Amino acid sequence: DPSLKVFTLNSNKGLAEQITEHIGVQMGKSSVTRFSDGEVQINIEESIRGCDVYLIQSTSAPANEHIMELLIMIDALKRASARTINLVMPYYGYARQDRKARAREPITAKLVANLITTAGATRVLTLDLHATQIQGFFDIPVDQLMGVPILADYFSQKELDDIVIVSPDHGGVVRARKMADRLKAPIAIIDKRRPKPNVSEVMNIVGNIEGKTAIIIDDIIDTAGTITLAANALVEHGAKEVYACCTHPVLSGPAMERINNSKIKELVVTNSIVLEDEKKSEKVTELSVAALMGEAIIRVHEHQSVSKLFD
Amino acid sequence: DPSLKVFTLNSNKGLAEQITEHIGVQMGKSSVTRFSDGEVQINIEESIRGCDVYLIQSTSAPANEHIMELLIMIDALKRASARTINLVMPYYGYARQDRKARAREPITAKLVANLITTAGATRVLTLDLHATQIQGFFDIPVDQLMGVPILADYFSQKELDDIVIVSPDHGGVVRARKMADRLKAPIAIIDKRRPKPNVSEVMNIVGNIEGKTAIIIDDIIDTAGTITLAANALVEHGAKEVYACCTHPVLSGPAMERINNSKIKELVVTNSIVLEDEKKSEKVTELSVAALMGEAIIRVHEHQSVSKLFD
Ligand SMILES: Nc1ncnc2c1ncn2[C@@H]1O[C@H](COP(=O)(O)O)[C@@H](O)[C@H]1O
Ligand SMILES: Nc1ncnc2c1ncn2[C@@H]1O[C@H](COP(=O)(O)O)[C@@H](O)[C@H]1O
Repeated sequence: DPSLKVFTLNSNKGLAEQITEHIGVQMGKSSVTRFSDGEVQINIEESIRGCDVYLIQSTSAPANEHIMELLIMIDALKRASARTINLVMPYYGYARQDRKARAREPITAKLVANLITTAGATRVLTLDLHATQIQGFFDIPVDQLMGVPILADYFSQKELDDIVIVSPDHGGVVRARKMADRLKAPIAIIDKRRPKPNVSEVMNIVGNIEGKTAIIIDDIIDTAGTITLAANALVEHGAKEVYACCTHPVLSGPAMERINNSKIKELVVTNSIVLEDEKKSEKVTELSVAALMGEAIIRVHEHQSVSKLFD
Repeated sequence: DPSLKVFTLNSNKGLAEQITEHIGVQMGKSSVTRFSDGEVQINIEESIRGCDVYLIQSTSAPANEHIMELLIMIDALKRASARTINLVMPYYGYARQDRKARAREPITAKLVANLITTAGATRVLTLDLHATQIQGFFDIPVDQLMGVPILADYFSQKELDDIVIVSPDHGGVVRARKMADRLKAPIAIIDKRRPKPNVSEVMNIVGNIEGKTAIIIDDIIDTAGTITLAANALVEHGAKEVYACCTHPVLSGPAMERINNSKIKELVVTNSIVLEDEKKSEKVTELSVAALMGEAIIRVHEHQSVSKLFD
């Protein structure tokens, strides 16, 4: 279908290549460079007049750079007469700033939704939003894909015995439940208190984990404080071994050191965020969301529901 | 007046301090820091409910970081019930991307205007926009201040003999004319062709410069290709000595090396953009726009026209 065009920016070029291969289209020709003073310079090198454009970019770190690249590209696509501009955002940055937790805080997740819409996007396709409510921050259609099936498939192929799926906090129980259903396993919950951002503390374990293989699941692993303390607590409380998995490997600051020094046997993540070389470790396994996102693009383009992809 | 509050972000903290001193108010308490993954974290540490907030930030390099800080701060101010949010932008970044010079280019100057408005700003006070048309990119009031009087005052105090004001290109003639009127001097124009961005070439000089003290004036000096080639051409064509001045010292890439190696005797700039230490040079004189911007804030707050500031 010549009206379907896929373009990528700088955040996930490898994944974007895999997505075009899955769909069976050429990557749209464009370049994103910088002027001498660091301002973004965008060139779209083929006509897109009347086309449905799918633009791939995670707003992962450096978030501000990736957001501005995205907005400027949307502006260029709009002015070049694209028929629709469909953002494919494997990772939606600033999603944790989704409410005023304290007085006079911004709600940056909503701001970013407004910026994307103002720039001219007509649809968003994303993966595991930190809060599902972020869909409602947009007045354009948002389709949300799930990482759980990909993570669950990987673990089911390992044929682990006597597993328990662990949510590292109360907010993650729904996700843990979905994973547990797919793996026909029970769940447990870490009853934790977080004194301030990026600092975590494990308190207590709700559910039976003794002698079991625990798989902790979260949406985002950032500084890895939560997940490594959870892993160590699980082992102390008698878990046989501990795996961890998440959709979005932010892995900032002390994350890799913590993971490498923790009781976590293997950390399984997706490529929604690129794993830079210094974050590669024998402990980390990366799964691709290319087939999922590629399939979702095809379905969106054919005006079909993407929810079928999770049956 | 307790309803007038001034806040600053990270681009121009020194200038912002000078502005609050000029106005005679305390700087509003806020902090702009980063979460571990680099996302912007903003805290406004005093109530601004019902206040008229003046927020100082240039969108100079790193432009994307400074723009996102600005948008997130506007969002926080809006949600904290500021009555008005008045941006004080000594330098408006991305101003050179103000039209489609080639097919499928973005118009980032317009995009940024839309982003600022969407975030919730109610007014913009700025200095020497690269193109005056950018005022029309906004549907909120925009007041534009001029750097020419400050630059002209400095040169008139030097009591130079037999001066000529030189525009480095045809686009700058109006500005050169304003400067020449203030200094009661004639003008000359460099007839130049620019093969591609950040590359400049001097062609020809229109006007009499022989034996005179030439003062080249531009709005932005970026890589300094234009201005240093102009200076050298002026000396070759018989100018006695050459000064240069501009409002916005972007000074990226090879700029300082070019200036230091050029025939320019002195470069006079304003502090609309911070001069980092590595850009300080015996040749560079920095003038402050603090009194001008402070006065403009007072006038805007008292619902008076800022144009009086140029009489
Ligand atoms: N990039 C970030 N890194 C760490 N904490 C953040 C970040 N963005 C927002 N937060 C904070 O994380 C909290 C929300 O996280 P959560 O409870 O997991 O939804 C809020 O208190 C935010 O201020
Ligand atoms: N940051 C920048 N650095 C250098 N050139 C730029 C920049 N932004 C835009 N441009 C280009 O500068 C030209 C406009 O400059 P001007 O003719 O001086 O208004 C356009 O061709 C733009 O593509």
